Amino acid sequence: MARIVQKFGGTSVANLDRIRAVAGRIKETIEAGDQVAVVVSAMAGATDQLVAWTRELSPIHDAREYDVVVSSGEQVTAGLVALALQAEGVDARSWLGWQIPIETDDAHGRARISAVDGDEIVRRLGGGQVAVMAGFQGLGSDGRVTTLGRGGSDTSAVALAAAIRADRCDIFTDVNGIYTSDPRIVAKARKLDKITYEEMLEFASLGAKVLQPRSVELAMNHGVRLQVRSSFDDAPGTLVVDEEEVVEHAVVSGIAHSGNEAKITLIRVPDRVGVAASLFGSLAATNINVDMIVQNVSEDGNTTDLTFTVSQPDMERTLRLVEDKREELGFERVVGDADVVKISVIGVGMRSHAGVATTMFSALAECGINIQVISTSEIKISVLVASTYTELALRSLHSAYGLDAK
Amino acid sequence: MARIVQKFGGTSVANLDRIRAVAGRIKETIEAGDQVAVVVSAMAGATDQLVAWTRELSPIHDAREYDVVVSSGEQVTAGLVALALQAEGVDARSWLGWQIPIETDDAHGRARISAVDGDEIVRRLGGGQVAVMAGFQGLGSDGRVTTLGRGGSDTSAVALAAAIRADRCDIFTDVNGIYTSDPRIVAKARKLDKITYEEMLEFASLGAKVLQPRSVELAMNHGVRLQVRSSFDDAPGTLVVDEEEVVEHAVVSGIAHSGNEAKITLIRVPDRVGVAASLFGSLAATNINVDMIVQNVSEDGNTTDLTFTVSQPDMERTLRLVEDKREELGFERVVGDADVVKISVIGVGMRSHAGVATTMFSALAECGINIQVISTSEIKISVLVASTYTELALRSLHSAYGLDAK
Repeated sequence: MARIVQKFGGTSVANLDRIRAVAGRIKETIEAGDQVAVVVSAMAGATDQLVAWTRELSPIHDAREYDVVVSSGEQVTAGLVALALQAEGVDARSWLGWQIPIETDDAHGRARISAVDGDEIVRRLGGGQVAVMAGFQGLGSDGRVTTLGRGGSDTSAVALAAAIRADRCDIFTDVNGIYTSDPRIVAKARKLDKITYEEMLEFASLGAKVLQPRSVELAMNHGVRLQVRSSFDDAPGTLVVDEEEVVEHAVVSGIAHSGNEAKITLIRVPDRVGVAASLFGSLAATNINVDMIVQNVSEDGNTTDLTFTVSQPDMERTLRLVEDKREELGFERVVGDADVVKISVIGVGMRSHAGVATTMFSALAECGINIQVISTSEIKISVLVASTYTELALRSLHSAYGLDAK
Repeated sequence: MARIVQKFGGTSVANLDRIRAVAGRIKETIEAGDQVAVVVSAMAGATDQLVAWTRELSPIHDAREYDVVVSSGEQVTAGLVALALQAEGVDARSWLGWQIPIETDDAHGRARISAVDGDEIVRRLGGGQVAVMAGFQGLGSDGRVTTLGRGGSDTSAVALAAAIRADRCDIFTDVNGIYTSDPRIVAKARKLDKITYEEMLEFASLGAKVLQPRSVELAMNHGVRLQVRSSFDDAPGTLVVDEEEVVEHAVVSGIAHSGNEAKITLIRVPDRVGVAASLFGSLAATNINVDMIVQNVSEDGNTTDLTFTVSQPDMERTLRLVEDKREELGFERVVGDADVVKISVIGVGMRSHAGVATTMFSALAECGINIQVISTSEIKISVLVASTYTELALRSLHSAYGLDAK
């Protein structure tokens, strides 16, 4: 007997037929003798409609009312899945965020879970009842409805799994696991059987939209075993686990890419103290997230070129903001470039292996791909290249690190 | 300065343009110096869609999960109206049933309100904030979401008005008040300026779908001044008030009709004790509501014909149930007739005036309309006639009681 959390995303509950299929799958797990707590997203498209309404009424909207409106989608699905289970003869009840409660901070629209009381759920699971929880939603300290940001139902599922000490948290989605690279681009990409939390966190942060990064962080902190698997078949997916559980480490686990980048370059910035602090301070103050940063010494020795990346939707705003500071900072001009892609090589193995970066740079050079910016962390190396090279870069790196399927 | 509850039905908030219009109307009231608490229904059609989903998944559904699903429509509207008010520069916040809370019993799907805590709302109204409450929903004693039955937002509005001691509760709808008869049928029908609670209760129960009957009952018990008015213009509507407030009583205030009736006749029922108790006991046990009942002595003296009415959707079920009891009760056969209409003459004035019934029967007889069943209460007389006479009966009674517009 295992205690399992099963999370179903929007495409898995997109209509009544799929909801019935989800109920059938849950029933199979119950009949195998397991306890099941379910977390559901809104029906595909429902949240988009609700978000669009709030935007149309009020572009600068009150996030508390936004949360009231958009959280209703998960409420509908939770009730419908409970009904579908009952129609299959399975004892089930729905749970809303405020009923459990899923306590969060008051950062409406992107709240973080602070506490989950799982006792009543555990008691009812023990009595054979399936708990069907509305994902994405929580209860703020002010007694109002909060939401956890796009993809927040993943985080709901992990938080519930931690609270009820579940043996596993299965994330059912429209892909059947985590791949060494995007299989739509790299034909030889392989599904990974296991991946570490740290690597998954990098994959999730670097453009793979399978899991909300926050959910991986939470799973890592609470030791929740995550499984990413397909809602349309029974094949095992990818297990996200502790590093010790992954027996054979490849040096590099996979190659991720993110096309949502924009490069900003300040040309001929005077080489003096405080320029970076002033610039990035202003960006942070207006909630613009800066990712990669690089500063080159210019040929004349007195000025430098300063390059950094932001997400594409922030590019225009960033350019205006930087332009406003031209006099203060004394640079010559600023240019933006959205035709870039960030390619990242990820693997916990690179902690103990030298030469990983060299392999990357050589492989890209052999293809004649110019590297514009580089950034590294303990377990990943990211480079910014022109977006026209996306496919070429992914495929050549996939081969260079020996990841190609046989 | 007055404290006003404004309730907007589904057609009044059917889309974003109408929601903006509602916000504009609320703003006008605020700017006139009044305090406003708003109660909203779901966007027109939203509840129907949600109900259809629950029915399709599970014909015999768990009413607790039904409530979770269908209550989401009002949650969406409450948030959207609050956003629309904020966009107009009006301070506003939404309130869900469980947040206030609107406490109800646990009769899911048709719950009755037991208590409403209005203190926090009163405090915020005093600070200039508009409260936008989701109608139709409440909180059961088990901590689960309840709903108040179709039209329940009217009752939410009255309960809130009572809790915050509002000076008036305006029900905005797609008609501009209560008429002496259905103006689509009786061209000479007049809008009533005032009507008593008792009369309104009869109108609401007898087919006029303007208000949920329970809301009128609650208004009467708590002395809440109700006004039924149009959401599409500024004309005053109909005030529903205490009998003392209506200065000039007409003997008859109006003529209502309900086509949702079915007549069931048991032919040649043995004239012995206990037959009616057994029959109506069985119907009550299966939740079939019996309205009018009449028993005639048959020509042979030993058997009678027994006639009663049920709502049309219950007719087939009633016929089957009665047929199953044929041996036990010993009647010859049972027949059903859905081609009937109930016409009711309503007026508190008839308490003190004789001859009201005679006028009704004479007027119908003059038109050659056969009366099939009669039932009376202190302030109304209802007759069942063939539905083909609906228009003729309404118009001739409207004239007979002197209600025609000059």
